[in-house]
Amino acid sequence: MIYDLIVIGGGPAGYLAAERAGQAKMKTLLFEKRFIGGVCLNEGCIPSKTLLNSAKILDYARFGAKYGVSVKEAALDHKIVLKRKDKVVKTLVSGINMKLKKNGVEAVNDEAVIRGKSSGGFEVSAGSVVYTSKQLLVATGSVPVIPPIPGVKEGLEREFVLTNREILDLEEIPGNLVVVGGGVIGLEMASYFNSAGSKVVVVEMLDHIAGNNDIEISEILLKNYKKKGIDFYLSSKVVEVSEKSVVFECNGKKTTVPCDRVLMSVGRKGASQGIGLENIGVETQKGCIPTDERCRTNVPGVYAAGDVNGKSMLAHTAYREAEAAVNNMLGKRDFMRYNAIPAVVYTNPEVSGVGETESSAKEKGIDVETVKISMRYSGRYVAENEGGDGICKVIVNKKYRNLIGVHMIGSYSSEIIYGAALMIEMQLKVDDIKELVFPHPTVCEVIREALFEL
Amino acid sequence: MIYDLIVIGGGPAGYLAAERAGQAKMKTLLFEKRFIGGVCLNEGCIPSKTLLNSAKILDYARFGAKYGVSVKEAALDHKIVLKRKDKVVKTLVSGINMKLKKNGVEAVNDEAVIRGKSSGGFEVSAGSVVYTSKQLLVATGSVPVIPPIPGVKEGLEREFVLTNREILDLEEIPGNLVVVGGGVIGLEMASYFNSAGSKVVVVEMLDHIAGNNDIEISEILLKNYKKKGIDFYLSSKVVEVSEKSVVFECNGKKTTVPCDRVLMSVGRKGASQGIGLENIGVETQKGCIPTDERCRTNVPGVYAAGDVNGKSMLAHTAYREAEAAVNNMLGKRDFMRYNAIPAVVYTNPEVSGVGETESSAKEKGIDVETVKISMRYSGRYVAENEGGDGICKVIVNKKYRNLIGVHMIGSYSSEIIYGAALMIEMQLKVDDIKELVFPHPTVCEVIREALFEL
Repeated sequence: MIYDLIVIGGGPAGYLAAERAGQAKMKTLLFEKRFIGGVCLNEGCIPSKTLLNSAKILDYARFGAKYGVSVKEAALDHKIVLKRKDKVVKTLVSGINMKLKKNGVEAVNDEAVIRGKSSGGFEVSAGSVVYTSKQLLVATGSVPVIPPIPGVKEGLEREFVLTNREILDLEEIPGNLVVVGGGVIGLEMASYFNSAGSKVVVVEMLDHIAGNNDIEISEILLKNYKKKGIDFYLSSKVVEVSEKSVVFECNGKKTTVPCDRVLMSVGRKGASQGIGLENIGVETQKGCIPTDERCRTNVPGVYAAGDVNGKSMLAHTAYREAEAAVNNMLGKRDFMRYNAIPAVVYTNPEVSGVGETESSAKEKGIDVETVKISMRYSGRYVAENEGGDGICKVIVNKKYRNLIGVHMIGSYSSEIIYGAALMIEMQLKVDDIKELVFPHPTVCEVIREALFEL
Repeated sequence: MIYDLIVIGGGPAGYLAAERAGQAKMKTLLFEKRFIGGVCLNEGCIPSKTLLNSAKILDYARFGAKYGVSVKEAALDHKIVLKRKDKVVKTLVSGINMKLKKNGVEAVNDEAVIRGKSSGGFEVSAGSVVYTSKQLLVATGSVPVIPPIPGVKEGLEREFVLTNREILDLEEIPGNLVVVGGGVIGLEMASYFNSAGSKVVVVEMLDHIAGNNDIEISEILLKNYKKKGIDFYLSSKVVEVSEKSVVFECNGKKTTVPCDRVLMSVGRKGASQGIGLENIGVETQKGCIPTDERCRTNVPGVYAAGDVNGKSMLAHTAYREAEAAVNNMLGKRDFMRYNAIPAVVYTNPEVSGVGETESSAKEKGIDVETVKISMRYSGRYVAENEGGDGICKVIVNKKYRNLIGVHMIGSYSSEIIYGAALMIEMQLKVDDIKELVFPHPTVCEVIREALFEL
C-alpha cells in the first residue's frame, strides 16, 4: 500500500498536518518516536503553563491582602502540581489521538528513517517495516542546544544539569537553581521555581533578557523579577559547570554560584539528524531544513514544517506551516507569512508581542511612529493590578499609517495579542482601528487608547 | 463667548466626546451634575470590576488545592475592598480630569438645563449662568428602572432596597441578599456578594438569566452559580417588597424570601428628563432620544450619545457614539454600526459575546451554520481550569461564509471577544480566519478550532 502522506514527527506541526490531511481524505501515516504531542505538549508549552498557573494562584494568595483578601499560610505542593501536570498532558494527548483516529490517520509510535525513493514514492522504514508514500512531511522539531562548556556533559549525565525535558519532572524543588539563558524557557521556569521556593539565579549572555522582545519591556520584566527575588547576571558567559556550582565570566571577572541544579536553556536547534534526509537529497543548513513560503524543501514532494525549518520555533507557527504544507499538497496555493506571528512569555506579568519592534523596524529601514502608554490607561488594569507597571507599545508605519507592531507587558496580554496580530495581518490602518469597538472595561482597550495618542 | 460644543453629562459618552472635541480644537464645555466618569466609572463597571477582582482572588485561594496550592483561612475583608474600590475610582477619575484639561476642555460640576435657541446658538444654564454653544451633545446616560411594585419605593427610602449605586457602597455584607433581575448587573453583584459571604437569591422574570446572551451559555452560567450556592427563581415576578422580605409569584404560587437587603436591577432607562430637551424641540421616545447613524437627533446641531439614546446601554458603545458624533460635527462622515459590539458579563466564569446569536439570526431570517465546541479544546484552558465546562460557539452566515457571531463562557473571554468583534466588523470569511496565527497555548485558540470544525 502506498500512502499519500507520511509525516515524521508527532509534535504540533506533525500531528496537525496529519489531522488536516486525514480530514482531506489523504491516506496518512504519522510517526512519532517519543510521545504524540511532541515537546510542546509533553515537555514544553503545556506542562510549563500548568506549573505557572499554580504559581500564579500562589502569587494571588500571597499578595491577596492588597486586594482585601487575607490568606494564612499559602504554600505550593510541588508533587501535586506535577501530578496535575501529568493529568493535563494525558488529557490533551488523548484528545489528539482521538482526533487523529477520527480523521483516519494511522499513527505509529516508532522512530522513522527515510531510506530512499522508488518508483512508488518515498520509502520510510520503522523497525523492520518499510512504508511508501507519495509525499513526505518532515516535522521532527528541535532539540535543546547543549553548549560545549566544560562540565555540562557530565552534569547532564549525573542529572545536575537539566534541560526543559528533565526540569518539568523534577520531584524536589531545588534550594538553589541556576538558569543558564534568560530567554522564554529560562524565564518561565525561573518564574515557577522562584514561586515554588527556589533561590533562582539567571545567567544571560546578552545585556538583556527575553530575547527579541521590545527592550523596554524586557527591562520592566527584569525589574519585576528582581522584586520577586530572582537574581540576574547579564552580559555573563558561563565558562564551567563544576561539582555543585556554575562559573561565569563578566567583563573578564569570574564568579562562582553554588547551586543544587542547573537549567540549560540557551536555545534550540533543528532536529534533522538521523532521519535519512541525505538518502533523498534534502538539503540542510546548520541543522535546519530550508523551506520556501509554501513549506517545500528542495526535493519535490518533500515538505518541512515546525521547528525543524529553523524559522520561528513556535508551536503556533508550526500549526500554520503544517496547514500551509497540506494545502499545497492538495493543490491549494497557500503561502506562509511571518510578519504577524505573535509571541508570548507566560511570566507574571505576561509579555506578548507581534510584528516589528522599534529596533527591528529600524534595521529594515522602515520609518515608524511609536506610542508607548501605561497599562494604567485601562480601568480594568488599574482595578486588578495594584502598583502595576505594565506598558503597551504600538508601532505604525509612518508612510502607510498601518499598524505593524504591538508589544505589551501586563495581565491578559497573552490572550489579547492575537487581535493585534489580526490587525497587522489585515494591514489595518490606524483610522480603521479607531472605529472598532473594544469592550469596556478591558485591558485590551489600551491598544485603542494608544492609537488615539498618535 | 460662544462655545463650539456644550456636552451635557460627564460619563463615558460625555467625557470622551469632550476630550476628542478638545483635541480637535473645538471650544468645549462639559457639564456633569454628579461625578466625572458617570455611572460607569463611579457606580458601575469600574467599581464592580474592582470588587469582582477581589472575589476572584478569594475564589483562587479557596479552590487552590485543586492546583496544588494549599491555603489556610482565606477571607475577604469587605471594608478593605471598598476602600480600594474608592482609590481605584479616584485614580481613574483624576486621569479623566487630566485628559480633559490637557485637551483644553472646560468642565463644570453642575446641573445644566437647555433653555432655548438664540441667534448665537443653543442656550444652556447652570446655576445662574447662561452659556451659549453652536452645537450640543446630550450624554445624560441612564437611571435604574424602579418598578411600581408595592413596597419598593418605601424600601428604597429606608435603604432596604438598593440600586447599583448604593450597593457598591454598602459597608456590611448582608447575611441574606435578594437580587431582583438576573441581568448583567444583578449577576455581577450576586457573584461578588456570594463570594463575600452573603446567601444570595436571584429572582428573574424570564425563564433564563443573562438577558440576550446565548441560551446554552446562560444555562452553563446558571449551573456554575448554583454550584457556588446561589439560589435562583426563574419565571418569577416580584409582587411585593415587605418589611424584611421579598414576595414573588411563579405559576400563580406566591413565595416569600426573607432577606436583609434587596438589589433592584431590572433594567435601566434613558435619563432625558429635566434637561430642557422640550425647550428646543428634541424628540424623545419612551424616555430615550432617537438618533440616526451619525448620532444626530431631530434638531440640527444637537447630537446624543450613550445610554440616553436607548440603543445599546454599554459604555463602549457610548465611547464610539461619542467619537462618531464629534467626527460628524467636524464634518467627517462617520457612521455608527451596531452589529459588532461585544458584551461581557464579568462573572466567574466570564461570559462574552458579539454579533448574532442563533436565535437573533433566526429572527432576522439569516441562514446560519453554528459550531459549538468545549473550551477544553484549548490546552491552556485545560491547564488552568480543573473541571471547566466552558464552551465557544461560532455562528457563520451560510451564504457568504463570513463570521457573524461568537459567544463564549470561560476564563479570559472578556479579553478575547474584541478580536472576534474585529473579525465580524471586517466581514472576514471563515477561510481568511483559518490563515490567521493565534498564539499557542491560549484560550483564544478555541475560536480558530471551532472554525475548523465547520
